[in-house]
This record gives sequence, C-alpha cells and structure tokens, in this order.
Amino acid sequence: MKTFGFEIVHNDSKTNARTGIIHTPHGDIQTPAFVPVGTQGTVKSLTPEDLHDLDVRLFFVNTYHMYLRPGLSVISQAGGLHRFMGWDHPLITDSGGFQVFSLGRKRYAKKNENGEGEADLVRINEDGVTFRSHWDGSEHIFTPEVSMLYQWTLGSDIHIAFDDCTEYPISYKKARESMERTHRWAERSLEEHARQWTMSMGSKKPYQALYGSIQGSVYEDLRKESAQFITLLPFDGYAVGGVSVGENKEEMRRVMDWVSPLLPPQKSRHLLGVGEIDDIFALFEHGFDTFDCVQPTRLARMGRVYAKSNKRKIFEVDILKSECAHDFNPIEKDCSCYTCTHFSRAYIHHLFKVRELLGYRLASIHNISFINRLVSEIRLAIGHDSFVALKKEWLS
Amino acid sequence: MKTFGFEIVHNDSKTNARTGIIHTPHGDIQTPAFVPVGTQGTVKSLTPEDLHDLDVRLFFVNTYHMYLRPGLSVISQAGGLHRFMGWDHPLITDSGGFQVFSLGRKRYAKKNENGEGEADLVRINEDGVTFRSHWDGSEHIFTPEVSMLYQWTLGSDIHIAFDDCTEYPISYKKARESMERTHRWAERSLEEHARQWTMSMGSKKPYQALYGSIQGSVYEDLRKESAQFITLLPFDGYAVGGVSVGENKEEMRRVMDWVSPLLPPQKSRHLLGVGEIDDIFALFEHGFDTFDCVQPTRLARMGRVYAKSNKRKIFEVDILKSECAHDFNPIEKDCSCYTCTHFSRAYIHHLFKVRELLGYRLASIHNISFINRLVSEIRLAIGHDSFVALKKEWLS
Repeated sequence: MKTFGFEIVHNDSKTNARTGIIHTPHGDIQTPAFVPVGTQGTVKSLTPEDLHDLDVRLFFVNTYHMYLRPGLSVISQAGGLHRFMGWDHPLITDSGGFQVFSLGRKRYAKKNENGEGEADLVRINEDGVTFRSHWDGSEHIFTPEVSMLYQWTLGSDIHIAFDDCTEYPISYKKARESMERTHRWAERSLEEHARQWTMSMGSKKPYQALYGSIQGSVYEDLRKESAQFITLLPFDGYAVGGVSVGENKEEMRRVMDWVSPLLPPQKSRHLLGVGEIDDIFALFEHGFDTFDCVQPTRLARMGRVYAKSNKRKIFEVDILKSECAHDFNPIEKDCSCYTCTHFSRAYIHHLFKVRELLGYRLASIHNISFINRLVSEIRLAIGHDSFVALKKEWLS
Repeated sequence: MKTFGFEIVHNDSKTNARTGIIHTPHGDIQTPAFVPVGTQGTVKSLTPEDLHDLDVRLFFVNTYHMYLRPGLSVISQAGGLHRFMGWDHPLITDSGGFQVFSLGRKRYAKKNENGEGEADLVRINEDGVTFRSHWDGSEHIFTPEVSMLYQWTLGSDIHIAFDDCTEYPISYKKARESMERTHRWAERSLEEHARQWTMSMGSKKPYQALYGSIQGSVYEDLRKESAQFITLLPFDGYAVGGVSVGENKEEMRRVMDWVSPLLPPQKSRHLLGVGEIDDIFALFEHGFDTFDCVQPTRLARMGRVYAKSNKRKIFEVDILKSECAHDFNPIEKDCSCYTCTHFSRAYIHHLFKVRELLGYRLASIHNISFINRLVSEIRLAIGHDSFVALKKEWLS
C-alpha cells in the first residue's frame, strides 16, 4: 500500500505559497517545513527527543555519509535508519550525488605535475560516479541503481533520484551534458526504485517515496527543459538542487522563477541546501513545501545565534562578542525554547569562550527553534492570506 | 541562620560506612553520594536538567576556573553560580589550591638554561600562591582570604579551606612545611569565612558551609597530626585531598586508614578527586560521605563506558572497538538510563567513529548513571547492613 501522499490545505491568494500536509509511513509533516540536516545520522549535538521537542518532524540524512560510516550492513542489521538512530518520525535521504561529487573531490586531491589530477578523483561516466572516500581515500562507485538500493536499505520516507552534480560555474555545453545524464539517471532511478518496491512487497516495509531531481545549472532553457522532463516522470515529488552552488541569491531566485511554474502543484516540492532568512521567504513564495539547510546548526556551533533585532535584516548575534559576557538576558527575550528559558547570553558566551560542549547544544536548540518558529509563523500567515505582510515585516 | 547540617541515618554494623543526609540551603543530599565535576561551570555536554534526571544533587565546580573565566564579576552580576548555570541544587567549590599548583605550573612552563625555572611559575609564600593563568599566562595570586571571598561570591553551598598543595613524591621535610602552612591557612580561611558570613548577614544570602582540608602527603604522622589539628577547628565538615596525587591505591588506602578514625563522626567528610570502582567501596567503607571524580565523564568522552561484566573487576567497555559496530544491544541491558533505553552500542560506536558530539553526551549520561546506580546500591546496602556482601559481589 502506498502510504505517501501530499495534500494542499490552503493556497495563498497573492503568491504561490501554500500550506499542506505530507503523509508518510512515519507520520504527517505540516508544510511549509524546515528540515534540519543530520549528515552523519545525528543532528549535531541533539537527541531525537530534542528534535521532537523542537517540533521537528522531518530531518535529512546523507546517504553518502551513512554508506561510508557506519556502512549499510550496520543500518540493515539495525532494522533501518529510523531504528538505528532512535527516530520515529519521517526521514528524507539524498541520492549521494552531491557528496560523491563535492566530498569525493575535495579531499584526497593530489595534483599531478601539471597542477591537474583532481578530475581523476571523481570519474563520471554513463554508468555512474567513481569517487574516493573522504575518510580513507578508498574507491567507491555510486550509480542510480546502488543509490536507490542504499536508500531503500536506509528506509527513509523520502528518497531522491540519483543526479549528476557539477561544479559552479560550468559552461552551457557541460551543463547540458550533465542535465541530460541526470535525466537518463532519473529514469534508471525510477525503474530501480519500482523494482525495490516490488521486491519488498512481501515484507512489512512501507512504501518509500521518490523525488525527482531537477538540474540545469543557471541556464534558463536547461532548467525549464529539466523541469518539463522530470515532471513528466511519475515521481512522488520534486527536488530542486544545485542552486546554492552559485552562492548567489539572484541566481537562486531566477532558477526558482523558471522552475516553479512548471512543477505540478499537486505534488510536494523540496529545495535542497538553502536557507538564509530571506531565502526562506523566497522559496515558500515559490511554492516550495520543504527545504533543508545546515546553516542554523552550523552557525550555532560557531556561536552565531539567531535573534530578530530592530536593525532590519540582521538576524544573528555573535555570542562570542565581549558585549555578551555581561548580558544576563536570554538570546531572545520572547523565545520559549529551552535555551532561552533557562540560560543567559552571559552563560552561553562563557561556554563558547571555554569551548564547552554544552554551548554547541544550547545554541543549536535555539537556532532550530528560531527557524521553526519563523516557518510556523509563515504557515499561519499563508493560512490567513497574510504571507506578503509577514514577509514585509521581516525583510523590508 | 545556619542552614547547613549533617545527620547520620544509619551506621553500618561491620564497617565505618554510614548513610546520612547533608542539609544545605539548596536542598538535601542523601549520602553516600557521587559528586560529578563541572570544572568550568558545566558538567561537560550535560544540562542541569540532565543532571537532575540522573539523580545528581550536588556537583563540583572549580573556583580557579571560574575565577579566570568567566571571572567573578560576571558570576556576581549573575547573582551567583547557581543562577549563572541554572542549577537549583547544592554546589561544592574547591579552594583553588590544587589548580593554582597544578595548572599554573603545567602550562607556560619555560625552563631556563639549567633546565630549571618551573618553580618560578608557582611561587608559594606565607601569604599565598602566585601563579599564571593556563589561558594566557597572566599572573594572579590566591591567598586564604581571596579564596574565601571568591567562594562566597560563587555562592556554593560547601566551600573548602585554602590549602597548600604540593607535588608527589615530596620529601618529609617539605611535606611538613606544606602541612604546617596549610594549617595556618586553615585558620585564616576560617577567620575570613566568618567575616564574610557576618558581612552578608544583612543580605538574603544563606550560610555557606566550609570544609577543612587535611594534608600531610603519604606520611603517617603528618596525616594524623593534620587530621588532629584540622578537626579541632570549627569547620562544618572535612575534605581529604592529595591522596590521588600518588596514583597509588595502596597509599590512598593507608591515608584513609590513618585519617578516618580521627575524623569526628558527626561531621560530613568528602574525599577529593578519587573514584575508580574499587576506590568507591574503599572510601565509603572509611566513612566518607561524598567524593568527586572526573573519571566517569572523562572516560565517557574517550568512548569508555561502564558495564558490569562477568569478568570480575572489569567495568569498562571501549565503545570504539570494532566488536561494538554490529552490537545492537544497549551498553548495559539492565540499565534504565536514557542512553541505554534509547540507543544501541552500534549507534554510539558510530557516533564516536565519526566524532559526533552526541556520542560524548550519551556516554556521559550512561557513565554518571552507572556510578549513581552503584552508589545508590551501596546506600541501600549500608541501610541493610549488607555493605560487605555487596562489596564482595562487585570486587572479589
């Protein structure tokens, strides 16, 4: 039985923003939703109970990382990723495509005498991608088929089709080649995903959804072509990636402008790896339902905590600044998170100054709470057709 | 009003072990009790709520560390250490004597041409100890008077008199000099402590207890003389230090053999900085009521978790060992701690292998739980006059 589905609850009257519910075998997700990243099978410093208390109902785990460590035999023996991590709510995994490309290349890069050589570390051909482990340099291969198999083994509720991720910037010619390969791999991903689902029919394993991945770099015709091609395939939802690669907000907005109108409204949409405050408004405005981002937790571990201030568009406080040493207020006075209801800026400043583990945890709790509170405000605003007003309040 | 006191509930019929209650302004402590160490104002990786859930009712903070960072002006402005850390239960602080001696010397040690010079970094005279910050090498001085002032400022429930800590091994002559200095400093500590208490009478600050510190290195006559001298002074309780310095269990036992019979039974006794499993039985057998030790949390952060095994006297599992990678049992099957009721050895092994912060936290929770469960068993056993039997079950 298919236990995955998406329903729209309300369409904003002025923008493409919408509220909805994603149904999964591990429960429902109210959308719009922020999806924290638990790269290595844990959202850094937090327990599953912490996440639940923070109203997180979906988090992201990287297939590449779990494949290398602890390895899929461990996850399989554990009875899947949910049981391994002690998380009873929905999970989304990626295809591994982005990590094999970026991490497999970044480390163990040994240039030859001509300063070349990096390209040898990640070899892409029609079959798949050969890469080296960032842990020990050992060689591995990911194909659409193994990516699907690995994600079924992890047992996440939402999988992503294996795509060909490329560097930025990239020539039009290479972007087209890469996109076309992504399309062929999308068809192979679908086929293998269906095969896995058929094979698991006898077991008690529930259906696991598969999102198609739209590529095309920063080229309008490619992005549109990719959206048209991928949405013709029977995916359960769609993921748009490769927009943060540019690290250029304008380009990201343009990609969303091109792609969003081509996505079928009745299917859920995920934006991969983006999430500054203004991005969040933009992506929901484009009708995306979920997005994942390491930013809130990564900033937290650097001591950068979110706080809405009187200065417009400034949402971060550097807790390490000396002015926090004697500040006995919480990070945010009206925040109801565990950190803000129990500890002062002065104490968290101290923890960071002396590099105590508790600091990372308290800051992570606050930053996830802050983003989830914002997303929850946005969800309510969409429901009341006041999304534009809320956006103005926050950003203008 | 003095709100500190100790009462014996039950004396073991066969040994000097006893159960009791230490009353403090921040609540009662059932003894025997294990006292975790929160060196820098946090028990590493854990929140106050975690500690409370682990039945911790007293923890240890180092005055030296709080004095250097965040500095006492911050603690004072925060309204004391309890409020700064968000901890509503009792606290014990040390005098700083051990840290100024060991940390002030260890770092920033620059030898001169003759290989000497270390001695210059920590200069002891009749007034007090001049030392250098392990953070930045800046020079500071601790005297009995400032140690008392600092501990009043921290507002812990139990203070310790400022003592002269020496290296190990040390000659008899030097040990005697050091002990006699400790005794003079004990009198000065008492005087300053009383002055602080008198001065604070107008405020709402409750009385804060002061323990005397017994020194004398590994020399029988010195330890006995120190115990006799210190217990003649009107301290609220007694702390025995300098026994772990030897890192020699036999010497530690001998010191306890000499000192314990000379301690007035009606006052509470604390053993400083000791706590392997067999030590725990030994110190309670000698009538100590509380002990502090970094071992359970330090081992946890190294991935060494406690587990009672069939092999006698082996209480540690190295979670990083490859045999844990596929072990889906909890650390201990019959442990009811959060870690053991939610996560497998395999998952914790994974967290340590990929150096995830959550691993340190889960292991710390288990190790504190393990020690507290043992201490609780000991407390019950003393109450039923079966302490000796329990010790045999665990150690022989």
